[in-house]
Amino acid sequence: MTLVMINGKIVDSSEAKVSAWDRGLYFGDGVYEVVQGYAGKLWGFTQHFRRFQRSLREIEILDVNLSQIEQWVFLAFQEAKMPNCVVYFHITRGCGIRSHVPGDDLGRPQFLLYVKPAPNNTKRVANGISAITCPDIRWKRCDIKTLNLLPNVMASQAAHKVGAEEAIFVSDGTITEGASSCFFSVLDGKLVTRPLDHQVLPSVTRQAILVIAEKIGLEIIERPITIREGYHAEEAFVSSSGYEIRPIIKIDDHVISGGKPGVVTSKIIERFLSHTRSGEAFDDLVKDTRFQLLPAL
Amino acid sequence: MTLVMINGKIVDSSEAKVSAWDRGLYFGDGVYEVVQGYAGKLWGFTQHFRRFQRSLREIEILDVNLSQIEQWVFLAFQEAKMPNCVVYFHITRGCGIRSHVPGDDLGRPQFLLYVKPAPNNTKRVANGISAITCPDIRWKRCDIKTLNLLPNVMASQAAHKVGAEEAIFVSDGTITEGASSCFFSVLDGKLVTRPLDHQVLPSVTRQAILVIAEKIGLEIIERPITIREGYHAEEAFVSSSGYEIRPIIKIDDHVISGGKPGVVTSKIIERFLSHTRSGEAFDDLVKDTRFQLLPAL
Repeated sequence: MTLVMINGKIVDSSEAKVSAWDRGLYFGDGVYEVVQGYAGKLWGFTQHFRRFQRSLREIEILDVNLSQIEQWVFLAFQEAKMPNCVVYFHITRGCGIRSHVPGDDLGRPQFLLYVKPAPNNTKRVANGISAITCPDIRWKRCDIKTLNLLPNVMASQAAHKVGAEEAIFVSDGTITEGASSCFFSVLDGKLVTRPLDHQVLPSVTRQAILVIAEKIGLEIIERPITIREGYHAEEAFVSSSGYEIRPIIKIDDHVISGGKPGVVTSKIIERFLSHTRSGEAFDDLVKDTRFQLLPAL
Repeated sequence: MTLVMINGKIVDSSEAKVSAWDRGLYFGDGVYEVVQGYAGKLWGFTQHFRRFQRSLREIEILDVNLSQIEQWVFLAFQEAKMPNCVVYFHITRGCGIRSHVPGDDLGRPQFLLYVKPAPNNTKRVANGISAITCPDIRWKRCDIKTLNLLPNVMASQAAHKVGAEEAIFVSDGTITEGASSCFFSVLDGKLVTRPLDHQVLPSVTRQAILVIAEKIGLEIIERPITIREGYHAEEAFVSSSGYEIRPIIKIDDHVISGGKPGVVTSKIIERFLSHTRSGEAFDDLVKDTRFQLLPAL
Protein backbone atom coordinates (compact mmCIF):
# COMPACT_ATOMS: atom_id res chain seq x y z
CA MET A 1 0.00 0.00 0.00
CA THR A 2 2.95 2.31 -0.59
CA LEU A 3 3.90 3.91 -3.87
CA VAL A 4 7.57 4.70 -4.36
CA MET A 5 9.07 6.95 -7.02
CA ILE A 6 12.75 7.42 -7.68
CA ASN A 7 13.84 10.15 -10.07
CA GLY A 8 10.43 10.17 -11.73
CA LYS A 9 10.09 6.40 -12.10
CA ILE A 10 7.55 4.48 -10.06
CA VAL A 11 9.25 1.41 -8.61
CA ASP A 12 8.26 -1.60 -6.56
CA SER A 13 8.29 -0.49 -2.93
CA SER A 14 9.97 -3.61 -1.56
CA GLU A 15 12.64 -3.42 -4.25
CA ALA A 16 13.22 0.33 -4.07
CA LYS A 17 16.93 1.05 -3.97
CA VAL A 18 19.25 4.01 -4.18
CA SER A 19 22.94 4.20 -4.96
CA ALA A 20 25.29 3.52 -2.05
CA TRP A 21 27.06 6.70 -3.25
CA ASP A 22 24.02 8.88 -2.60
CA ARG A 23 25.17 11.81 -0.43
CA GLY A 24 21.86 11.50 1.40
CA LEU A 25 23.07 8.22 2.84
CA TYR A 26 26.52 9.11 4.12
CA PHE A 27 26.09 12.86 4.82
CA GLY A 28 22.33 13.38 5.10
CA ASP A 29 23.01 15.91 2.37
CA GLY A 30 19.46 16.66 1.30
CA VAL A 31 16.13 18.24 2.21
CA TYR A 32 12.60 16.90 2.31
CA GLU A 33 8.89 17.64 2.64
CA VAL A 34 5.86 15.80 3.95
CA VAL A 35 2.50 16.82 2.48
CA GLN A 36 -0.88 15.43 3.38
CA GLY A 37 -3.45 14.62 0.75
CA TYR A 38 -7.11 15.17 1.68
CA ALA A 39 -9.94 14.04 -0.53
CA GLY A 40 -7.71 13.95 -3.56
CA LYS A 41 -5.97 17.29 -2.98
CA LEU A 42 -2.47 17.94 -1.67
CA TRP A 43 -3.28 20.36 1.11
CA GLY A 44 -0.97 23.34 1.26
CA PHE A 45 1.22 22.05 -1.53
CA THR A 46 2.16 25.56 -2.67
CA GLN A 47 3.45 26.40 0.82
CA HIS A 48 5.28 23.11 1.19
CA PHE A 49 6.91 23.60 -2.15
CA ARG A 50 7.94 27.16 -1.30
CA ARG A 51 9.56 25.87 1.88
CA PHE A 52 11.22 23.06 -0.08
CA GLN A 53 12.74 25.57 -2.49
CA ARG A 54 13.99 27.61 0.43
CA SER A 55 15.57 24.51 2.02
CA LEU A 56 17.31 23.63 -1.25
CA ARG A 57 18.60 27.16 -1.57
CA GLU A 58 19.85 27.33 2.01
CA ILE A 59 22.01 24.23 1.60
CA GLU A 60 22.88 25.27 -1.95
CA ILE A 61 21.47 22.44 -3.98
CA LEU A 62 20.88 24.70 -6.91
CA ASP A 63 20.64 22.63 -10.07
CA VAL A 64 17.16 21.23 -9.52
CA ASN A 65 14.47 21.33 -12.18
CA LEU A 66 11.68 22.44 -9.86
CA SER A 67 8.83 22.26 -12.34
CA GLN A 68 9.80 18.68 -13.10
CA ILE A 69 9.85 17.85 -9.39
CA GLU A 70 6.40 19.38 -9.02
CA GLN A 71 5.15 17.32 -11.95
CA TRP A 72 6.58 14.15 -10.44
CA VAL A 73 4.91 14.80 -7.09
CA PHE A 74 1.50 15.25 -8.72
CA LEU A 75 2.02 12.29 -11.01
CA ALA A 76 2.88 10.06 -8.05
CA PHE A 77 -0.08 11.38 -6.06
CA GLN A 78 -2.37 10.63 -8.97
CA GLU A 79 -0.94 7.18 -9.62
CA ALA A 80 -1.10 6.22 -5.94
CA LYS A 81 -4.90 6.48 -6.00
CA MET A 82 -4.95 7.26 -2.28
CA PRO A 83 -7.12 10.36 -1.84
CA ASN A 84 -6.18 10.57 1.86
CA CYS A 85 -2.47 10.05 2.14
CA VAL A 86 0.89 11.29 3.23
CA VAL A 87 3.37 12.19 0.52
CA TYR A 88 7.04 12.27 1.48
CA PHE A 89 9.70 13.48 -0.93
CA HIS A 90 13.33 14.46 -0.71
CA ILE A 91 16.16 15.63 -2.89
CA THR A 92 19.78 14.86 -2.15
CA ARG A 93 22.76 16.62 -3.68
CA GLY A 94 23.56 13.63 -5.85
CA CYS A 95 25.77 10.54 -5.97
CA GLY A 96 29.52 10.65 -5.94
CA ILE A 97 32.71 9.69 -4.16
CA ARG A 98 32.42 10.55 -0.49
CA SER A 99 33.97 13.98 -0.04
CA HIS A 100 32.59 16.91 1.96
CA VAL A 101 33.13 19.16 -1.04
CA PRO A 102 31.49 17.31 -3.92
CA GLY A 103 33.95 16.14 -6.55
CA ASP A 104 33.73 16.45 -10.32
CA ASP A 105 32.05 13.06 -10.42
CA LEU A 106 28.94 14.39 -8.63
CA GLY A 107 25.83 13.30 -10.52
CA ARG A 108 22.41 14.92 -10.69
CA PRO A 109 20.39 15.62 -7.52
CA GLN A 110 18.47 12.51 -6.52
CA PHE A 111 14.71 12.55 -6.00
CA LEU A 112 12.88 10.05 -3.83
CA LEU A 113 9.17 10.04 -3.03
CA TYR A 114 6.67 7.77 -1.41
CA VAL A 115 2.93 7.93 -0.88
CA LYS A 116 1.27 6.01 1.92
CA PRO A 117 -2.23 6.08 3.38
CA ALA A 118 -2.87 8.87 5.89
CA PRO A 119 -2.52 7.68 9.49
CA ASN A 120 -5.68 7.42 11.53
CA ASN A 121 -5.35 10.23 14.04
CA THR A 122 -8.86 9.91 15.53
CA LYS A 123 -7.88 8.29 18.81
CA ARG A 124 -5.01 10.68 19.47
CA VAL A 125 -7.19 13.66 18.65
CA ALA A 126 -9.92 12.41 20.99
CA ASN A 127 -7.68 11.42 23.89
CA GLY A 128 -4.61 13.56 23.54
CA ILE A 129 -1.03 12.40 24.01
CA SER A 130 1.67 12.59 26.65
CA ALA A 131 4.96 14.36 25.96
CA ILE A 132 8.33 14.56 27.60
CA THR A 133 10.87 17.36 27.43
CA CYS A 134 14.40 16.92 26.10
CA PRO A 135 17.34 19.29 25.84
CA ASP A 136 17.38 20.72 22.32
CA ILE A 137 20.76 19.42 21.17
CA ARG A 138 20.03 19.94 17.49
CA TRP A 139 22.00 22.14 15.14
CA LYS A 140 21.32 25.86 14.81
CA ARG A 141 19.46 25.80 11.50
CA CYS A 142 16.31 23.87 12.33
CA ASP A 143 14.46 26.19 9.97
CA ILE A 144 15.88 24.06 7.14
CA LYS A 145 14.07 20.74 6.67
CA THR A 146 17.07 18.47 6.18
CA LEU A 147 17.73 14.74 6.32
CA ASN A 148 19.95 15.22 9.41
CA LEU A 149 17.34 13.95 11.84
CA LEU A 150 19.26 11.82 14.29
CA PRO A 151 18.63 14.08 17.32
CA ASN A 152 14.92 13.95 16.50
CA VAL A 153 15.10 10.16 16.32
CA MET A 154 16.93 10.01 19.65
CA ALA A 155 14.41 12.30 21.36
CA SER A 156 11.47 10.36 19.91
CA GLN A 157 12.98 7.12 21.16
CA ALA A 158 13.44 8.61 24.63
CA ALA A 159 9.76 9.60 24.63
CA HIS A 160 8.65 6.20 23.38
CA LYS A 161 10.61 4.45 26.15
CA VAL A 162 8.50 6.11 28.81
CA GLY A 163 5.23 5.69 26.94
CA ALA A 164 5.05 9.26 25.64
CA GLU A 165 4.25 10.08 22.02
CA GLU A 166 6.21 13.26 21.51
CA ALA A 167 9.43 14.83 22.76
CA ILE A 168 9.44 18.58 23.25
CA PHE A 169 12.78 20.29 22.81
CA VAL A 170 13.87 22.86 25.38
CA SER A 171 16.66 25.34 24.73
CA ASP A 172 17.76 27.95 27.27
CA GLY A 173 14.66 27.28 29.33
CA THR A 174 12.19 27.80 26.50
CA ILE A 175 10.33 25.35 24.32
CA THR A 176 11.48 25.35 20.72
CA GLU A 177 9.31 22.67 19.10
CA GLY A 178 8.50 18.96 19.16
CA ALA A 179 10.77 16.28 17.68
CA SER A 180 8.36 16.14 14.73
CA SER A 181 5.89 18.91 15.45
CA CYS A 182 5.24 22.56 16.22
CA PHE A 183 4.26 23.40 19.83
CA PHE A 184 1.37 25.61 20.97
CA SER A 185 -0.02 26.45 24.37
CA VAL A 186 -2.98 28.35 25.71
CA LEU A 187 -1.89 30.82 28.39
CA ASP A 188 -4.37 33.23 29.99
CA GLY A 189 -6.83 32.31 27.26
CA LYS A 190 -4.41 33.34 24.51
CA LEU A 191 -2.83 31.08 21.93
CA VAL A 192 0.95 31.28 22.29
CA THR A 193 3.60 29.81 20.01
CA ARG A 194 7.25 30.52 19.38
CA PRO A 195 8.04 33.03 16.63
CA LEU A 196 9.79 31.71 13.53
CA ASP A 197 13.56 31.78 13.82
CA HIS A 198 16.56 29.53 13.09
CA GLN A 199 15.58 27.17 15.90
CA VAL A 200 12.24 25.98 14.55
CA LEU A 201 10.81 24.69 11.30
CA PRO A 202 8.52 27.14 9.52
CA SER A 203 5.55 24.84 9.83
CA VAL A 204 2.81 24.86 7.22
CA THR A 205 0.23 23.50 9.68
CA ARG A 206 1.32 26.21 12.14
CA GLN A 207 0.35 28.87 9.63
CA ALA A 208 -3.06 27.26 9.08
CA ILE A 209 -3.64 27.02 12.83
CA LEU A 210 -2.80 30.67 13.41
CA VAL A 211 -5.23 31.71 10.67
CA ILE A 212 -7.93 29.47 12.11
CA ALA A 213 -7.30 30.74 15.64
CA GLU A 214 -7.68 34.31 14.47
CA LYS A 215 -10.88 33.46 12.63
CA ILE A 216 -12.40 32.05 15.82
CA GLY A 217 -11.47 35.19 17.72
CA LEU A 218 -8.49 34.01 19.73
CA GLU A 219 -5.77 36.41 20.71
CA ILE A 220 -2.47 35.15 19.32
CA ILE A 221 0.96 35.83 20.74
CA GLU A 222 4.15 34.75 19.03
CA ARG A 223 6.81 34.56 21.72
CA PRO A 224 9.00 31.91 23.36
CA ILE A 225 7.24 29.77 25.97
CA THR A 226 9.22 28.86 29.06
CA ILE A 227 9.21 25.27 30.14
CA ARG A 228 7.49 26.38 33.38
CA GLU A 229 4.72 28.01 31.36
CA GLY A 230 4.43 24.85 29.32
CA TYR A 231 4.00 22.75 32.46
CA HIS A 232 1.28 25.01 33.81
CA ALA A 233 -0.44 25.92 30.54
CA GLU A 234 -4.22 25.80 30.45
CA GLU A 235 -3.93 23.79 27.25
CA ALA A 236 -1.23 22.59 24.91
CA PHE A 237 -1.06 20.85 21.56
CA VAL A 238 1.37 19.96 18.80
CA SER A 239 0.88 20.00 15.05
CA SER A 240 2.46 18.47 11.97
CA SER A 241 1.46 17.60 8.43
CA GLY A 242 1.27 13.88 9.06
CA TYR A 243 -0.28 13.89 12.53
CA GLU A 244 -2.35 17.06 12.14
CA ILE A 245 -3.18 18.40 15.62
CA ARG A 246 -2.60 16.34 18.77
CA PRO A 247 -3.71 17.70 22.16
CA ILE A 248 -1.06 17.39 24.87
CA ILE A 249 -2.50 16.14 28.14
CA LYS A 250 0.76 15.69 30.02
CA ILE A 251 4.27 17.13 29.83
CA ASP A 252 6.76 15.16 31.93
CA ASP A 253 4.89 14.80 35.25
CA HIS A 254 2.62 17.77 34.72
CA VAL A 255 -0.97 17.05 33.75
CA ILE A 256 -2.31 19.61 31.28
CA SER A 257 -5.97 20.76 31.14
CA GLY A 258 -7.12 18.05 33.53
CA GLY A 259 -5.69 15.25 31.40
CA LYS A 260 -8.04 15.73 28.49
CA PRO A 261 -8.02 17.87 25.34
CA GLY A 262 -8.83 21.47 26.21
CA VAL A 263 -11.77 23.50 24.94
CA VAL A 264 -9.71 25.90 22.83
CA THR A 265 -7.64 23.06 21.37
CA SER A 266 -10.79 21.15 20.48
CA LYS A 267 -12.28 24.19 18.77
CA ILE A 268 -9.15 24.63 16.67
CA ILE A 269 -9.09 20.94 15.81
CA GLU A 270 -12.74 21.02 14.77
CA ARG A 271 -12.12 23.94 12.42
CA PHE A 272 -8.90 22.39 11.14
CA LEU A 273 -10.66 19.14 10.32
CA SER A 274 -13.52 20.94 8.63
CA HIS A 275 -11.10 23.00 6.50
CA THR A 276 -8.98 20.06 5.45
CA ARG A 277 -11.92 17.72 4.81
CA SER A 278 -14.06 20.27 2.98
CA GLY A 279 -11.73 20.41 0.02
CA GLU A 280 -11.08 24.11 0.69
CA ALA A 281 -7.79 25.18 -0.79
CA PHE A 282 -5.08 25.98 1.73
CA ASP A 283 -4.18 29.02 -0.33
CA ASP A 284 -7.69 30.42 0.17
CA LEU A 285 -7.47 29.86 3.91
CA VAL A 286 -4.20 31.73 4.32
CA LYS A 287 -4.88 34.40 1.71
CA ASP A 288 -4.18 37.87 3.07
CA THR A 289 -3.06 36.47 6.42
CA ARG A 290 -0.59 38.43 8.49
CA PHE A 291 1.03 35.15 9.55
CA GLN A 292 4.09 34.36 7.53
CA LEU A 293 4.94 30.87 6.36
CA LEU A 294 8.67 31.44 6.11
CA PRO A 295 10.76 33.46 8.53
CA ALA A 296 12.31 36.68 7.29
CA LEU A 297 15.85 35.64 8.21
CA MET B 1 39.85 1.15 -7.76
CA THR B 2 37.25 1.06 -4.99
CA LEU B 3 36.05 -2.03 -3.17
CA VAL B 4 32.53 -1.91 -1.80
CA MET B 5 31.02 -4.29 0.75
CA ILE B 6 27.39 -4.32 1.81
CA ASN B 7 26.40 -6.49 4.77
CA GLY B 8 29.43 -8.70 4.29
CA LYS B 9 29.10 -9.11 0.52
CA ILE B 10 31.58 -7.53 -1.85
CA VAL B 11 29.66 -5.83 -4.65
CA ASP B 12 30.47 -3.98 -7.84
CA SER B 13 31.22 -0.39 -6.85
CA SER B 14 29.30 1.23 -9.70
CA GLU B 15 26.28 -0.98 -9.01
CA ALA B 16 26.37 -0.70 -5.21
CA LYS B 17 22.88 0.02 -3.91
CA VAL B 18 21.08 0.18 -0.59
CA SER B 19 17.40 0.02 0.21
CA ALA B 20 15.46 3.27 -0.18
CA TRP B 21 14.07 2.41 3.28
CA ASP B 22 17.48 2.55 4.93
CA ARG B 23 17.19 4.87 7.93
CA GLY B 24 20.66 6.13 7.05
CA LEU B 25 19.17 7.75 3.96
CA TYR B 26 16.17 9.58 5.36
CA PHE B 27 17.33 10.21 8.97
CA GLY B 28 21.13 9.86 8.87
CA ASP B 29 20.42 7.29 11.56
CA GLY B 30 23.82 5.66 11.75
CA VAL B 31 27.46 6.01 12.74
CA TYR B 32 30.71 5.53 10.86
CA GLU B 33 34.48 5.26 10.98
CA VAL B 34 37.35 6.04 8.64
CA VAL B 35 40.55 4.04 9.16
CA GLN B 36 43.75 4.35 7.21
CA GLY B 37 45.71 1.33 6.09
CA TYR B 38 49.50 1.67 6.02
CA ALA B 39 51.72 -1.00 4.53
CA GLY B 40 49.03 -3.62 4.87
CA LYS B 41 47.97 -2.75 8.43
CA LEU B 42 44.90 -0.88 9.58
CA TRP B 43 46.51 1.76 11.76
CA GLY B 44 44.78 2.28 15.08
CA PHE B 45 41.99 -0.10 14.22
CA THR B 46 41.46 -1.07 17.88
CA GLN B 47 40.91 2.58 18.81
CA HIS B 48 38.66 3.24 15.83
CA PHE B 49 36.60 0.20 16.68
CA ARG B 50 36.32 1.23 20.34
CA ARG B 51 35.05 4.61 19.23
CA PHE B 52 32.67 2.96 16.77
CA GLN B 53 31.20 0.83 19.56
CA ARG B 54 30.79 3.91 21.70
CA SER B 55 29.01 5.73 18.84
CA LEU B 56 26.65 2.79 18.35
CA ARG B 57 25.91 2.70 22.06
CA GLU B 58 25.31 6.44 22.31
CA ILE B 59 22.64 6.39 19.61
CA GLU B 60 21.38 3.04 20.89
CA ILE B 61 21.97 0.79 17.92
CA LEU B 62 22.44 -2.19 20.16
CA ASP B 63 21.82 -5.35 18.16
CA VAL B 64 25.07 -5.39 16.20
CA ASN B 65 27.28 -8.45 15.94
CA LEU B 66 30.54 -6.60 16.51
CA SER B 67 32.86 -9.53 15.97
CA GLN B 68 31.22 -10.14 12.61
CA ILE B 69 31.64 -6.47 11.69
CA GLU B 70 35.31 -6.66 12.63
CA GLN B 71 35.72 -9.77 10.48
CA TRP B 72 34.05 -8.05 7.56
CA VAL B 73 36.33 -5.01 7.82
CA PHE B 74 39.45 -7.18 7.77
CA LEU B 75 38.10 -9.37 5.00
CA ALA B 76 37.37 -6.31 2.85
CA PHE B 77 40.79 -4.83 3.61
CA GLN B 78 42.44 -8.08 2.59
CA GLU B 79 40.35 -8.50 -0.57
CA ALA B 80 40.97 -4.90 -1.63
CA LYS B 81 44.71 -5.58 -1.99
CA MET B 82 45.48 -1.92 -1.32
CA PRO B 83 48.14 -1.82 1.38
CA ASN B 84 47.88 1.96 1.61
CA CYS B 85 44.25 2.86 1.68
CA VAL B 86 41.34 4.50 3.42
CA VAL B 87 38.63 2.24 4.79
CA TYR B 88 35.22 3.79 5.43
CA PHE B 89 32.45 1.84 7.11
CA HIS B 90 29.11 2.68 8.65
CA ILE B 91 26.19 0.98 10.33
CA THR B 92 22.66 2.31 10.13
CA ARG B 93 19.80 1.29 12.40
CA GLY B 94 18.18 -0.73 9.63
CA CYS B 95 15.52 -0.49 6.95
CA GLY B 96 11.88 0.15 7.67
CA ILE B 97 8.91 2.41 7.18
CA ARG B 98 9.93 6.00 7.87
CA SER B 99 9.05 6.71 11.49
CA HIS B 100 11.21 8.47 14.10
CA VAL B 101 10.56 5.61 16.50
CA PRO B 102 11.40 2.49 14.48
CA GLY B 103 8.38 0.29 13.80
CA ASP B 104 8.04 -3.47 14.19
CA ASP B 105 9.10 -3.84 10.57
CA LEU B 106 12.63 -2.59 11.32
CA GLY B 107 15.16 -4.95 9.81
CA ARG B 108 18.74 -5.67 10.85
CA PRO B 109 21.33 -2.89 11.14
CA GLN B 110 22.86 -2.23 7.71
CA PHE B 111 26.59 -2.33 7.14
CA LEU B 112 28.32 -0.49 4.31
CA LEU B 113 32.06 -0.31 3.70
CA TYR B 114 34.39 0.87 1.01
CA VAL B 115 38.14 0.77 0.56
CA LYS B 116 39.89 3.26 -1.68
CA PRO B 117 43.54 4.13 -2.22
CA ALA B 118 45.02 6.51 0.35
CA PRO B 119 45.07 10.09 -0.88
CA ASN B 120 48.44 11.56 -1.69
CA ASN B 121 48.99 14.12 1.06
CA THR B 122 52.59 14.99 0.16
CA LYS B 123 51.91 18.38 -1.39
CA ARG B 124 49.61 19.52 1.41
CA VAL B 125 52.08 18.37 4.03
CA ALA B 126 54.89 20.22 2.30
CA ASN B 127 53.05 23.45 1.57
CA GLY B 128 50.32 23.61 4.19
CA ILE B 129 46.76 24.68 3.59
CA SER B 130 44.56 27.72 4.15
CA ALA B 131 41.55 27.58 6.44
CA ILE B 132 38.57 29.76 7.12
CA THR B 133 36.53 30.02 10.31
CA CYS B 134 32.80 29.28 10.47
CA PRO B 135 30.29 29.52 13.30
CA ASP B 136 29.92 26.06 14.81
CA ILE B 137 26.23 25.48 14.12
CA ARG B 138 26.41 21.71 14.61
CA TRP B 139 24.48 19.74 17.18
CA LYS B 140 25.70 19.31 20.74
CA ARG B 141 26.96 15.74 20.47
CA CYS B 142 29.85 16.04 18.03
CA ASP B 143 31.64 13.42 20.11
CA ILE B 144 29.46 10.85 18.30
CA LYS B 145 30.60 10.10 14.75
CA THR B 146 27.23 10.09 13.01
CA LEU B 147 26.00 10.33 9.44
CA ASN B 148 24.42 13.73 10.18
CA LEU B 149 27.14 15.69 8.43
CA LEU B 150 25.32 18.43 6.56
CA PRO B 151 26.80 21.32 8.60
CA ASN B 152 30.25 19.89 7.91
CA VAL B 153 29.42 19.74 4.20
CA MET B 154 28.16 23.33 4.25
CA ALA B 155 31.26 24.60 6.05
CA SER B 156 33.57 22.69 3.71
CA GLN B 157 31.77 24.16 0.72
CA ALA B 158 32.14 27.65 2.17
CA ALA B 159 35.88 27.05 2.55
CA HIS B 160 36.20 25.63 -0.94
CA LYS B 161 34.46 28.67 -2.44
CA VAL B 162 37.22 30.97 -1.23
CA GLY B 163 40.01 28.57 -2.11
CA ALA B 164 40.57 27.27 1.43
CA GLU B 165 40.90 23.58 2.22
CA GLU B 166 39.43 23.39 5.68
CA ALA B 167 36.76 25.16 7.71
CA ILE B 168 37.44 25.65 11.40
CA PHE B 169 34.39 25.78 13.63
CA VAL B 170 34.16 28.51 16.26
CA SER B 171 31.76 28.33 19.19
CA ASP B 172 31.53 31.02 21.87
CA GLY B 173 34.76 32.54 20.65
CA THR B 174 36.80 29.35 20.85
CA ILE B 175 37.85 26.89 18.17
CA THR B 176 36.14 23.52 18.47
CA GLU B 177 37.56 21.55 15.52
CA GLY B 178 37.75 21.48 11.74
CA ALA B 179 34.86 20.38 9.50
CA SER B 180 36.70 17.08 9.07
CA SER B 181 39.69 17.40 11.37
CA CYS B 182 41.04 18.06 14.84
CA PHE B 183 42.71 21.45 15.43
CA PHE B 184 46.07 22.10 17.11
CA SER B 185 48.11 25.23 17.62
CA VAL B 186 51.51 26.06 18.98
CA LEU B 187 51.29 28.89 21.51
CA ASP B 188 54.36 30.05 23.45
CA GLY B 189 56.16 26.96 22.21
CA LYS B 190 53.53 24.63 23.69
CA LEU B 191 51.20 22.36 21.80
CA VAL B 192 47.63 23.35 22.59
CA THR B 193 44.43 21.55 21.64
CA ARG B 194 40.91 21.52 22.94
CA PRO B 195 40.09 18.94 25.61
CA LEU B 196 37.67 16.17 24.69
CA ASP B 197 34.05 17.08 25.36
CA HIS B 198 30.66 16.84 23.65
CA GLN B 199 31.69 19.44 21.07
CA VAL B 200 34.51 17.56 19.39
CA LEU B 201 35.17 14.13 17.99
CA PRO B 202 37.51 12.00 20.10
CA SER B 203 40.07 11.81 17.34
CA VAL B 204 42.32 8.77 16.99
CA THR B 205 44.99 10.79 15.17
CA ARG B 206 44.78 13.39 17.96
CA GLN B 207 45.75 10.76 20.49
CA ALA B 208 48.71 9.66 18.37
CA ILE B 209 49.84 13.27 17.93
CA LEU B 210 49.72 13.98 21.66
CA VAL B 211 51.80 10.87 22.38
CA ILE B 212 54.31 11.83 19.68
CA ALA B 213 54.47 15.41 20.93
CA GLU B 214 55.22 14.22 24.42
CA LYS B 215 57.90 11.87 23.12
CA ILE B 216 59.68 14.76 21.40
CA GLY B 217 59.59 16.78 24.59
CA LEU B 218 56.83 19.26 23.84
CA GLU B 219 54.73 20.68 26.61
CA ILE B 220 51.08 19.87 25.95
CA ILE B 221 48.09 21.83 27.13
CA GLU B 222 44.53 20.66 26.62
CA ARG B 223 42.36 23.75 26.79
CA PRO B 224 40.05 25.73 24.48
CA ILE B 225 41.85 28.01 22.01
CA THR B 226 40.28 31.38 21.32
CA ILE B 227 39.90 32.44 17.75
CA ARG B 228 42.25 35.34 18.48
CA GLU B 229 44.89 32.91 19.70
CA GLY B 230 44.31 30.83 16.60
CA TYR B 231 44.90 33.84 14.36
CA HIS B 232 48.13 34.73 16.12
CA ALA B 233 49.42 31.24 16.84
CA GLU B 234 53.08 30.53 16.12
CA GLU B 235 51.94 27.42 14.29
CA ALA B 236 48.73 25.54 13.61
CA PHE B 237 47.74 22.28 12.01
CA VAL B 238 44.78 19.96 11.59
CA SER B 239 44.67 16.18 11.67
CA SER B 240 42.37 13.41 10.50
CA SER B 241 42.64 9.75 9.57
CA GLY B 242 42.31 10.31 5.85
CA TYR B 243 44.40 13.48 5.51
CA GLU B 244 46.84 12.78 8.33
CA ILE B 245 48.44 16.08 9.42
CA ARG B 246 48.08 19.25 7.38
CA PRO B 247 49.91 22.41 8.46
CA ILE B 248 47.72 25.53 8.48
CA ILE B 249 49.45 28.51 6.93
CA LYS B 250 46.49 30.90 6.95
CA ILE B 251 43.29 31.29 8.95
CA ASP B 252 40.91 33.77 7.34
CA ASP B 253 43.20 36.73 6.58
CA HIS B 254 45.81 35.83 9.16
CA VAL B 255 49.01 34.29 7.89
CA ILE B 256 50.35 31.64 10.29
CA SER B 257 54.06 30.93 10.83
CA GLY B 258 55.13 33.06 7.90
CA GLY B 259 52.94 31.20 5.43
CA LYS B 260 54.83 27.93 5.62
CA PRO B 261 54.63 24.84 7.83
CA GLY B 262 56.16 25.56 11.24
CA VAL B 263 59.15 23.83 12.80
CA VAL B 264 57.18 22.10 15.56
CA THR B 265 54.48 21.01 13.14
CA SER B 266 57.09 19.60 10.77
CA LYS B 267 58.76 17.66 13.60
CA ILE B 268 55.43 16.12 14.59
CA ILE B 269 54.63 15.26 10.99
CA GLU B 270 58.04 13.65 10.52
CA ARG B 271 57.53 11.43 13.56
CA PHE B 272 53.94 10.70 12.59
CA LEU B 273 54.99 9.58 9.12
CA SER B 274 57.78 7.46 10.50
CA HIS B 275 55.42 5.78 12.97
CA THR B 276 52.71 5.08 10.44
CA ARG B 277 55.10 3.96 7.69
CA SER B 278 57.30 1.82 9.90
CA GLY B 279 54.61 -0.74 10.50
CA GLU B 280 54.64 0.03 14.22
CA ALA B 281 51.37 -0.86 15.86
CA PHE B 282 49.27 2.08 16.99
CA ASP B 283 48.57 0.19 20.20
CA ASP B 284 52.28 0.12 21.00
CA LEU B 285 52.58 3.84 20.38
CA VAL B 286 49.76 4.80 22.73
CA LYS B 287 50.44 2.11 25.33
CA ASP B 288 50.55 3.57 28.84
CA THR B 289 49.78 7.05 27.54
CA ARG B 290 48.03 9.51 29.81
CA PHE B 291 46.09 10.81 26.79
CA GLN B 292 42.66 9.31 26.57
CA LEU B 293 41.06 8.29 23.30
CA LEU B 294 37.49 8.67 24.47
CA PRO B 295 36.19 11.40 26.71
CA ALA B 296 35.01 10.43 30.18
CA LEU B 297 31.56 11.95 29.73
